[in-house]
Amino acid sequence: MDIEIFSDVKCPWCFVGKRRFEKALAAFPHRDQVNVTWRSFQLDPSLPDHYEGTEQQYLAERKGIPAEQVRRMWDNLVEQAAGEGLDFRFDDVVVGNSFTAHRFLHLAKSHGLGAEAKEAVLSAHFEQGEDTSDVDFLVTLGASIGLDEDEIRSTIGSDRFAEEVRRDMDEAGSLGVSGVPFFVIDRKYGISGAQPTAVFADALASYWRESNPLVIAAPVDGAEVCGPDRCS
Amino acid sequence: MDIEIFSDVKCPWCFVGKRRFEKALAAFPHRDQVNVTWRSFQLDPSLPDHYEGTEQQYLAERKGIPAEQVRRMWDNLVEQAAGEGLDFRFDDVVVGNSFTAHRFLHLAKSHGLGAEAKEAVLSAHFEQGEDTSDVDFLVTLGASIGLDEDEIRSTIGSDRFAEEVRRDMDEAGSLGVSGVPFFVIDRKYGISGAQPTAVFADALASYWRESNPLVIAAPVDGAEVCGPDRCS
Repeated sequence: MDIEIFSDVKCPWCFVGKRRFEKALAAFPHRDQVNVTWRSFQLDPSLPDHYEGTEQQYLAERKGIPAEQVRRMWDNLVEQAAGEGLDFRFDDVVVGNSFTAHRFLHLAKSHGLGAEAKEAVLSAHFEQGEDTSDVDFLVTLGASIGLDEDEIRSTIGSDRFAEEVRRDMDEAGSLGVSGVPFFVIDRKYGISGAQPTAVFADALASYWRESNPLVIAAPVDGAEVCGPDRCS
Repeated sequence: MDIEIFSDVKCPWCFVGKRRFEKALAAFPHRDQVNVTWRSFQLDPSLPDHYEGTEQQYLAERKGIPAEQVRRMWDNLVEQAAGEGLDFRFDDVVVGNSFTAHRFLHLAKSHGLGAEAKEAVLSAHFEQGEDTSDVDFLVTLGASIGLDEDEIRSTIGSDRFAEEVRRDMDEAGSLGVSGVPFFVIDRKYGISGAQPTAVFADALASYWRESNPLVIAAPVDGAEVCGPDRCS
C-alpha cells in the first residue's frame, strides 16, 4: 500500500495533518505493509528566497489577509497543533521560498532519510524559527539526521533535485491537488486536509479491505454453515 | 495507458508529428506508464514498389497537384520540420509502395525494436533519400539497430508480416482513421494530425486525470487545508 503525501514545508496544516495521520498509521494493523512517500508541493512558488518581513506582513501584503483574521487563524492553528503535541511559534517564522528546502528533502529521500528530514524541517520552521533555506542551517540539520555535510553543501549550491521537485508539482497538478496536505493511497484514493485521526484510520481500514478481499476458496452453494437464524 | 500511432513511412506530417508527440511525452510525469505502439497505414497502396519518377512527378501525375502547389506545400513542410530539428529533402525522396517498409517495421516490432526502426526508416526516407523498399538497404539499416541480417533478408523475400500490415490497415478502417498521423489513446480518444506539442501534452494530462481520478475518501467540507491563498 503506497501512500504519497503532498505537502509544503511552510504549510501549518501539513504538520498538524502529519501527526494525525501518523497516529492512525501507528494503530493500523497492516502498517508494516504501508510505504509512505513525501512529495513536494509549493503553496507560493513566487516568493523570494528570503522575504523581508514577518509571516504576518507576508500574509497581509501578499495575500491580503487582515491582521485580525491572521491572529484568529493562528490561534486556532496553535491550539490544534498543541492538541497534537506541537509548539507552533508563528511570530518566529522565517518567511521565504520553500524550493531549496524541498531540494534538501529530495536529497534526504535519495538516502532513505526522507521521513526524518521532513519532520526536522517542519519542526525547524514552525517550532524553532529557523531559516530552512539557509545552507549552513541545512548542513547542520542534515548532519544531525545522518546526511553528509559536503554533499548537502554541494547540493544546495547547485540545482540538484530541482527536477524532482518540479516533477512532484507536475504530478500534484495531474492529480488535481490544489491544496495541502493531500494524501494519495495507491494512486486511487485522495484525502484532502489535516483530517481527524479517525478519518485517516477509517480510510486505511476501508481501503485495505477493498484491496485485499478474501477469495472464497470453496463452493458456497450447499455449504454446511450456521447463520444468525439457523444452521443449514 | 496505451497509445497507438497510425502512420505511414512516406507521410511527412507523420515524422513532424512524431517529434511533437515525443516532446510532450518526454515531459509527461506518467511517461513510464505509457506504452507506444506504431501501427501501419498506407496512404497509397496502389503504388508500384518502385515508381519511375520524382516525388514531384508522382504528386503531379497521380495526385494531380500542380508543381507550384507542391512547392508551397514542401516549403511549409521543410520549415515545420526544421522547427522540430528535422532536415527534409523532398527532391531526394525515393517514391514507391511502403508495404515492404511496413513489413520490415513489424519484423522490428516483433523483436522489441519497433520504435528504433520507425525512426530510422522515416529519417532514411525524408532526410537521406534512401530507398526504403530495397532489401539491401533494409538489411544494412536493420543491422544498425540490432536486427539479424539473415532474418531481414528472408523476411523481405517472403510475405512474412504482410498479414500484420493488413490487420493494422483494417483496424485503422474500423476506427475511422482516414488520414495520418493518427494517435489513439486506450482505444478511446483519437488525435488526428501533427498537432502542436502543447495539444499532445494537454491530451495526455487530461486523459490521465480522467482515467485515473482520485476517489476522495474523506469529507472535503471543512477540511483543514492550506491553499495558494490561505490556510483554512
